[in-house]
Amino acid sequence: MGMSRWKPDAQTRLVQAALELYGERGFEQTTVAEIAQRAGLTERTYFRHFADKREVLFGGSTVFEETLIHAIANAPDVATPIDAVVVGLDAVAEAMFPPERHDYARRRQAAIMANAGLQEREQSKFASLVAALVVALGQRGVDEPTARLTAEVGVVIFKVAFERWVDGDQHLDLSQLIQESLRDVRGVTAGEGSAVGAAA
Amino acid sequence: MGMSRWKPDAQTRLVQAALELYGERGFEQTTVAEIAQRAGLTERTYFRHFADKREVLFGGSTVFEETLIHAIANAPDVATPIDAVVVGLDAVAEAMFPPERHDYARRRQAAIMANAGLQEREQSKFASLVAALVVALGQRGVDEPTARLTAEVGVVIFKVAFERWVDGDQHLDLSQLIQESLRDVRGVTAGEGSAVGAAA
Repeated sequence: MGMSRWKPDAQTRLVQAALELYGERGFEQTTVAEIAQRAGLTERTYFRHFADKREVLFGGSTVFEETLIHAIANAPDVATPIDAVVVGLDAVAEAMFPPERHDYARRRQAAIMANAGLQEREQSKFASLVAALVVALGQRGVDEPTARLTAEVGVVIFKVAFERWVDGDQHLDLSQLIQESLRDVRGVTAGEGSAVGAAA
Repeated sequence: MGMSRWKPDAQTRLVQAALELYGERGFEQTTVAEIAQRAGLTERTYFRHFADKREVLFGGSTVFEETLIHAIANAPDVATPIDAVVVGLDAVAEAMFPPERHDYARRRQAAIMANAGLQEREQSKFASLVAALVVALGQRGVDEPTARLTAEVGVVIFKVAFERWVDGDQHLDLSQLIQESLRDVRGVTAGEGSAVGAAA
């Protein structure tokens, strides 16, 4: 199925063009002008959508944060802090990362892994996600130290699950990988995992 | 006690000068030339010690990483992965963050918190710390997924403990705060922490 039956919006076309060019020649060797041209748009249009050359790969982070925060606010009252965060991560998985996004996610991740500046931008997005999670948990009445730790652990759970999703088969379900990542974090903090003696 | 009885080395003088200037006028408004001048050294000497204006606050990160990795390699064979990481973090706390470093750590943290670029640099140091921990755990025979999660959780434990140390009284012991942070992470992942119903 080509592009002919569906005309993506400007933002989607810019992201696709950027990913193509980053894949073909690398992030450093690509200019905003070239991205705009490949998308059939102007540089000015690019900067109406994205603040700089990095941001084109992070346009989804606002939706990500809003989906997460909204789901946490609406999690059952009886949910513990970590459960509320996992409910939020599940909502993100369902809304933003269905199987048909797997190929895009894989190419985007490859572009980020190939460039230190993009990795820095990704890390700063995760830091702002931690801050947003602390606020969301605070609004549920969770005390600050617990909220902070839960937020950090929540981001670890997501990062690890997302990497497994991207690295894996496209039919893997991100929600299931989040549950698996939560179980693994529980195991790790409880002190499971082979000691040297067990592995040798 | 003034500086008269002890002449700090060039690197220490540069760090002290940078912290003074960042505190007085902010990171953005300070040049490398001014840092060197305040330290009574040349710009060229500055760049022999640090790659750029940010790096002056991160000169300890190599020692940090080496201390951690060495202690993990020498942790008892029966230690589980998370225990080995905590042994490593304790070694770092003891070697690098005694009570007399508290004031320095507090001023350094304030400078970092005041500047997005410094926060990015700190986050990238934490990312490289995760990578180093994964290698160190791998050498103990820990499988990659467990190593990855343990490394991420270890960094969270340290970050939270270190913030509590910096924000707290100078007589707090960082090793104790690391143990406390480990206990709290265990509690959080086990699903402890007040649900909304309990807090209301």
